[in-house]
Amino acid sequence: MNGTRFSGYLRLFILLMVAMTLIEIAPDAAEAKERASHFTLKNGMEVVVIPDHRAPVVTHMVWYRVGSADETPGKSGIAHFLEHLMFKGTDKIARGAFSKIISRNGGQDNAFTSQDTTSYHQRVAKDRLELVMDMEADRMTGLKLLNEDVLTERDVILEERRSRVDNSPQSILNEELLSALYQSHPYGIPVIGWHHEMAELSRSDAFEFYKNYYAPNNAVLIVAGDVTRDEVEKLAKKYYEPIPTRPEVKRSIRSSEPPHRAARRVKLVDPRAGKPMLERLYLAPSYSTAKAGEAEAIDLLIKITSSGSTSRFYKKLVIEQRKASAVGGWYTGTAVDSGRIGFYAMALDGVSMSDVEASMEAVLDDIKSNGVTEKELERAKSGFLADYVYENDSQSSLARRYGWGLITGQKIADIEAWPDRVSKVSVADIQAAAKKFLDIKHSVTGELLLPTKAKKQAVKKQAPASKS
Amino acid sequence: MNGTRFSGYLRLFILLMVAMTLIEIAPDAAEAKERASHFTLKNGMEVVVIPDHRAPVVTHMVWYRVGSADETPGKSGIAHFLEHLMFKGTDKIARGAFSKIISRNGGQDNAFTSQDTTSYHQRVAKDRLELVMDMEADRMTGLKLLNEDVLTERDVILEERRSRVDNSPQSILNEELLSALYQSHPYGIPVIGWHHEMAELSRSDAFEFYKNYYAPNNAVLIVAGDVTRDEVEKLAKKYYEPIPTRPEVKRSIRSSEPPHRAARRVKLVDPRAGKPMLERLYLAPSYSTAKAGEAEAIDLLIKITSSGSTSRFYKKLVIEQRKASAVGGWYTGTAVDSGRIGFYAMALDGVSMSDVEASMEAVLDDIKSNGVTEKELERAKSGFLADYVYENDSQSSLARRYGWGLITGQKIADIEAWPDRVSKVSVADIQAAAKKFLDIKHSVTGELLLPTKAKKQAVKKQAPASKS
Repeated sequence: MNGTRFSGYLRLFILLMVAMTLIEIAPDAAEAKERASHFTLKNGMEVVVIPDHRAPVVTHMVWYRVGSADETPGKSGIAHFLEHLMFKGTDKIARGAFSKIISRNGGQDNAFTSQDTTSYHQRVAKDRLELVMDMEADRMTGLKLLNEDVLTERDVILEERRSRVDNSPQSILNEELLSALYQSHPYGIPVIGWHHEMAELSRSDAFEFYKNYYAPNNAVLIVAGDVTRDEVEKLAKKYYEPIPTRPEVKRSIRSSEPPHRAARRVKLVDPRAGKPMLERLYLAPSYSTAKAGEAEAIDLLIKITSSGSTSRFYKKLVIEQRKASAVGGWYTGTAVDSGRIGFYAMALDGVSMSDVEASMEAVLDDIKSNGVTEKELERAKSGFLADYVYENDSQSSLARRYGWGLITGQKIADIEAWPDRVSKVSVADIQAAAKKFLDIKHSVTGELLLPTKAKKQAVKKQAPASKS
Repeated sequence: MNGTRFSGYLRLFILLMVAMTLIEIAPDAAEAKERASHFTLKNGMEVVVIPDHRAPVVTHMVWYRVGSADETPGKSGIAHFLEHLMFKGTDKIARGAFSKIISRNGGQDNAFTSQDTTSYHQRVAKDRLELVMDMEADRMTGLKLLNEDVLTERDVILEERRSRVDNSPQSILNEELLSALYQSHPYGIPVIGWHHEMAELSRSDAFEFYKNYYAPNNAVLIVAGDVTRDEVEKLAKKYYEPIPTRPEVKRSIRSSEPPHRAARRVKLVDPRAGKPMLERLYLAPSYSTAKAGEAEAIDLLIKITSSGSTSRFYKKLVIEQRKASAVGGWYTGTAVDSGRIGFYAMALDGVSMSDVEASMEAVLDDIKSNGVTEKELERAKSGFLADYVYENDSQSSLARRYGWGLITGQKIADIEAWPDRVSKVSVADIQAAAKKFLDIKHSVTGELLLPTKAKKQAVKKQAPASKS
């Protein structure tokens, strides 16, 4: 997938090489001139302003320092449920009118819940910024919920779970892998929640979560677009600053992982599985918990192993050995607590899972033993720096970068110096990261398989295909 | 292990057959005449008295309805830590004097913590019952803790973890298996705690747990021995009833398991592993959650597959196929929430884990397809009923049976009718239980292996053994 997006902007490369050079020449100057402004209101609410004057639009986001990993045991899904309920209304905004008002004003709005944050976004014309601030500030403390609305919305999230998870063997496998990877930390619990717990969530559960976590001192405001710091500060003081601080509101204390000592496996047999798939997750540090340079090295390592048609996995498993139809990998490095490395491969017909797995491991072992080449590393760096510059073109991507960074404990300077830190990673760093973090003891390996009977039926069906 | 204990009292068998017949003839009469008396004090504390006049001794136990599965996330080990700290002292009992006083009075005392209960036991001469009641009632609310005692005792539990878990690859494997089996329920967390969380437990954590869970209305008193109901009632009213009830104290609400959909595996490689071992756990109902007769059927199924030299596993894997040096199984059916079925096999040299596993599965599949014989079932029932009668001979086993039963939600009548219910299980029930509960989707399979290098070294070392 990265591969296709990649080739789409090959023409950016020359430009990028220039940009990279500039960064390498003057890192201190770059650090000194932060693109984004950052300040804190009197009630503890952080504000980030990212000027972007290419068009008269603004992106307005409020990120709360609370996600599914902060849920009370037994109440899984409540963070995401509350995200849905936040659109129900307040004394000022009629039931279900929030998104309609944004839309009538020519804007778009959205929200998402992750393990570490719940985040509300609007994109509007510049002159409507005041409107969305007023509305977002209002629902930070003024949420009103009718019991019937809560019950209806609970059906909505249950249906969301059915369609997104229960109807997708790959999503089920992912859920099972996360659950098996974590022994103690709540990252093992699905963001959407376990069905049996979601089905019991109540209006009072939602209000308790809201009261426990939604306060200005537990939120970050990000405004990107055609505005100045002063304009945003004036509006933020008008709409957000009057909301009383509540010092008792902060992220929950989460249980942490014991050392991992045993490799795990999960085997999911599902008649709806398409091609047999192998997926492996490794527990890894995140940008918030890694030692200097380690997370950047992991990011580059994953690009080298898994991204696009020049990656190690693709060249070995897809082209040379013809064992897999697709391969990939990712690093979930933006997190409050641990990160995760993931790899997957879809097996070609007649190739066993163990055969695919052996080839993937051989690729990883080779990097652990022999490292990567300078050329591979340079290609990976160029790719990341291209993505970085490309993200700058998108106002919402830019805003999200700062939101994710701040919400997971980074500073503005950290976020903006990322390209510089990436450019400093050496081939030795990559090999060290592979040796240290691709340890089978810290992993879970999943297999998604068709049932034996279904396989046979599938084969049978193929012959008289038109008869069924 | 059961096998050896078994053969030790073969001579009991004729007696048992008579006992069984009696039970089968007159179950209603047996139910009507309960052996144990049961009543509740005004403050909500339950009391069970089990007369046993063979010797002038009594067993006194207080069982709290709280165990490690009730711990706050991040505070694993606190239930067990508090159990240790309960011996530190009160205003009336000097630091560390509790056990010494019991001992000076010719008694023995002990305590244990499990997932569902924390339990304190003393065995004393009949005339010392009043003394231990006074002392146990005193520490239900009067615990005093010096910070230095807490820190010293924390070192003790950390050392206990090192010696019992971290020094034993089999214990580590068990910990890993439980952790992988449960996706949401706290039974996946070790009773002793995760090391990194234990190391942070404080005096205030212990006191918070004590205040939250130790109260007369959350406790069961069991007295077995040379006493009457009236004697116990009089003493209980004197010592326990004055302790104020606290209705807010009750067992925590625990998260429950989502449906299990994917088989799991755990591979632990440890140079200290002896023989390679295979172990499998299945999530199963407990006596508290099973439908009528199902838990009894599981108990008998496990006896038939795994207990002694006439068991299916032993005959197939040890005698006939010579693949394993030892096999076994168990059912953890006494629990507030789910139960667990477990099997293990130690592989003989040169036999692969997958070979051992295939043989174990063949044994289970055979029972699922063809059931067990009437003769096997009768032998299993006789074994259980022999154990039951044998337990009656031990005052502490008898007391524990009632303690476990009440603490996990059974009534006196349920506990005493167990032999009757076991005797009613049919071969069809056994086959149905095997089909329903030995489902690979609800299981985790563990392998304990030597590292490949260590294996080679072990072989090398054998030759010049005297030189090292």
